[in-house]
Amino acid sequence: MAHPVSPLAPTSYPELPKIAGVRFATAEAGIKYKGRTDVLLAVFDPGTAVAGVFTSSKCPSAPVDWCRDKLKGGVARGLLVNSGNANAFTGMKGRHTVEVSADHAAKALGISPSEVFLASTGVIGEPLDPEKFSAVTRDMAGRVKQGPWMDAARAIMTTDTYPKLAGATVDLGGVPVSIAGIAKGSGMIAPAMATMLSFIFTDAPIASGVLQGLLQPLIDKSFNSVTVDSDTSTSDTCLVFATGAAKVDAINSAQDPRAAKFAAALGQVLHDLAILVVRDGEGATKQVTVSVEGATSDQSAFRIAQSIANSPLVKTAIAGEDANWGRVVMAVGKAGEPADRDRLSIAFGNVLVAEHGERAASYNEAAATAYMKNQELEVRVGLGLGNGRATVYTCDLTHGYIDINGSYRS
Amino acid sequence: MAHPVSPLAPTSYPELPKIAGVRFATAEAGIKYKGRTDVLLAVFDPGTAVAGVFTSSKCPSAPVDWCRDKLKGGVARGLLVNSGNANAFTGMKGRHTVEVSADHAAKALGISPSEVFLASTGVIGEPLDPEKFSAVTRDMAGRVKQGPWMDAARAIMTTDTYPKLAGATVDLGGVPVSIAGIAKGSGMIAPAMATMLSFIFTDAPIASGVLQGLLQPLIDKSFNSVTVDSDTSTSDTCLVFATGAAKVDAINSAQDPRAAKFAAALGQVLHDLAILVVRDGEGATKQVTVSVEGATSDQSAFRIAQSIANSPLVKTAIAGEDANWGRVVMAVGKAGEPADRDRLSIAFGNVLVAEHGERAASYNEAAATAYMKNQELEVRVGLGLGNGRATVYTCDLTHGYIDINGSYRS
Repeated sequence: MAHPVSPLAPTSYPELPKIAGVRFATAEAGIKYKGRTDVLLAVFDPGTAVAGVFTSSKCPSAPVDWCRDKLKGGVARGLLVNSGNANAFTGMKGRHTVEVSADHAAKALGISPSEVFLASTGVIGEPLDPEKFSAVTRDMAGRVKQGPWMDAARAIMTTDTYPKLAGATVDLGGVPVSIAGIAKGSGMIAPAMATMLSFIFTDAPIASGVLQGLLQPLIDKSFNSVTVDSDTSTSDTCLVFATGAAKVDAINSAQDPRAAKFAAALGQVLHDLAILVVRDGEGATKQVTVSVEGATSDQSAFRIAQSIANSPLVKTAIAGEDANWGRVVMAVGKAGEPADRDRLSIAFGNVLVAEHGERAASYNEAAATAYMKNQELEVRVGLGLGNGRATVYTCDLTHGYIDINGSYRS
Repeated sequence: MAHPVSPLAPTSYPELPKIAGVRFATAEAGIKYKGRTDVLLAVFDPGTAVAGVFTSSKCPSAPVDWCRDKLKGGVARGLLVNSGNANAFTGMKGRHTVEVSADHAAKALGISPSEVFLASTGVIGEPLDPEKFSAVTRDMAGRVKQGPWMDAARAIMTTDTYPKLAGATVDLGGVPVSIAGIAKGSGMIAPAMATMLSFIFTDAPIASGVLQGLLQPLIDKSFNSVTVDSDTSTSDTCLVFATGAAKVDAINSAQDPRAAKFAAALGQVLHDLAILVVRDGEGATKQVTVSVEGATSDQSAFRIAQSIANSPLVKTAIAGEDANWGRVVMAVGKAGEPADRDRLSIAFGNVLVAEHGERAASYNEAAATAYMKNQELEVRVGLGLGNGRATVYTCDLTHGYIDINGSYRS
């Protein structure tokens, strides 16, 4: 666990707003890590709506199965999260663990187990003993409070080298509504799914159906647009809890103009968290934005951007500060999407390196080399075929990734 | 270029048979490398049939476009290959280069340019000067001979750390027919395509249409079943040249029973070359066979096997000699193919690690750890859903890969 802190770590952390109707506590349950918190227990006031998006993995973890089922009710009273063990690929034992864990949390909080949401992150394939929770939940329930969010963000970390927090306040008809979000994740981060673990809390009064409808497209533009290593976790979970405690009329329809305003703020929080995940990508030394335009459709642009962002050869070239456009061409070509070599243009930042299927006449190697030394880089690809565009966020691939993942059972 | 030789390099090289009707020479044209051969020129007797499979990249190199066009004729008299520059993403200049190069080769050999096949491998995006060939083709044409094949295999290497050769002799109705094959490639090796560069020569008399029909399914089981880094080259080319010089009746139909016999020998040569490519995977220290069975179809099994073989987390775990079945579960789950966690079984070699969605009762960590120290490993996955099966060959992901690809413009 003692990996060096990412050079892309934030230099300061935001002070997230307290969310009326949300209280939480953390504890050391000794699930895997020693000398740090590894459990988060949150309690929500009655009337809290919930929406969620989960991994697209065909082998999801037991807590993901549990949450998918409980989400049908649309209401939440509690959240129990642990780090150190993902309770994934744990068979009947895993299902038993989520049931017993939910019972422990429910008893401690005086609520129904079916209103408790669960998430686990860490090693896959090891049984998780639910009695680890029974030892701490009652004590935690006795000391829940509205902050500090930093404690919650720290308790859910695994190989993360820094906690991830983002928040927003949005004015809905003269009333300020707050959003506080936390996330974890730095490896097994891939597209076409939800995220690692992320929990968003708001006092907005919003119907769960409306919230769920807003959430998926926002996830597509945030967590689904980042990749560290193309590997999709079994445990990816993003849950949004809306207590409705803000003193403003409820948003009961997606057509309510305040829904769009709230969605913009929620989208910003999700985007901020997604970028924090990329910047903590295992071994990352550079943050890379891959922008594709001129594709035949947005979806086609997205697939090409992902192909570039997931290419080990592009990512190692970036680590080596090499403006290697040949590898970008390769990644465009392998995406299997419509592309015409002779219309392709490629730039690193504002340095145009290739156009019309060959090296740009204006290309300046010194300028490109200087640009590649930046910590934040943009790879821009123009396909010249249509109006489709997409942006994907990633990091470079370095010796640090091999160090972290080549050691025994991290 | 001075990367250490792969620890998986062969300890000896086969003596490939001379192929009647095929002569070749190599030369130092100084395209990029110094002090080594970088051009191969081969000449075929009249009546030589040709078949080929190329990259699935949407941005293929200029030589690939050229070969696809010339393949329509079904006959070949010459082959010109260079290493050091791929002539890919070189626009109009690239098309001009292939035309001029074919002219140089044709003039030197006294044949038509449309009968010359071309392949280039190396850096992408740099113009390739065709006059590099004019300086050497006439001299090469004057000294073509039937061997040694080792010279041909060496001239086409780029980041390869050893030459790749495989051959076979097959009895077709009492007459021995020979096959000699060479290949190059160690990075930018990925599925769903042809291969890097591979050239196969045989004296079998076989119609080009029959040969082409045999080739694709054999490629699917050999080169299309290996992956080093999931990156598909712009230049992948496999060409088979059949001179027909063997004194045996021609194979003019796929129904001819000798076609199947020839295909089996050709398939073995392709498989041997594909395995040599994987064993020279950039930074490789272990060869890994991923075998999937019990899938709903062979194609589904293949996609799952590829997902495992391409997973950076699986590949780094193997480099770390960690029997990390959790990452295998993850890779099965992210493949997007039908999979039921509770029917899944996973073994490393003969060490069963998981079954029925959890750790196997018989699991023995010491046995697994001992097995993982082998240089050749098998990851076996049973899905328990159907009869679909597939095997994909790969290598581990180590610091060596980062060293090779993180340095400036390899």
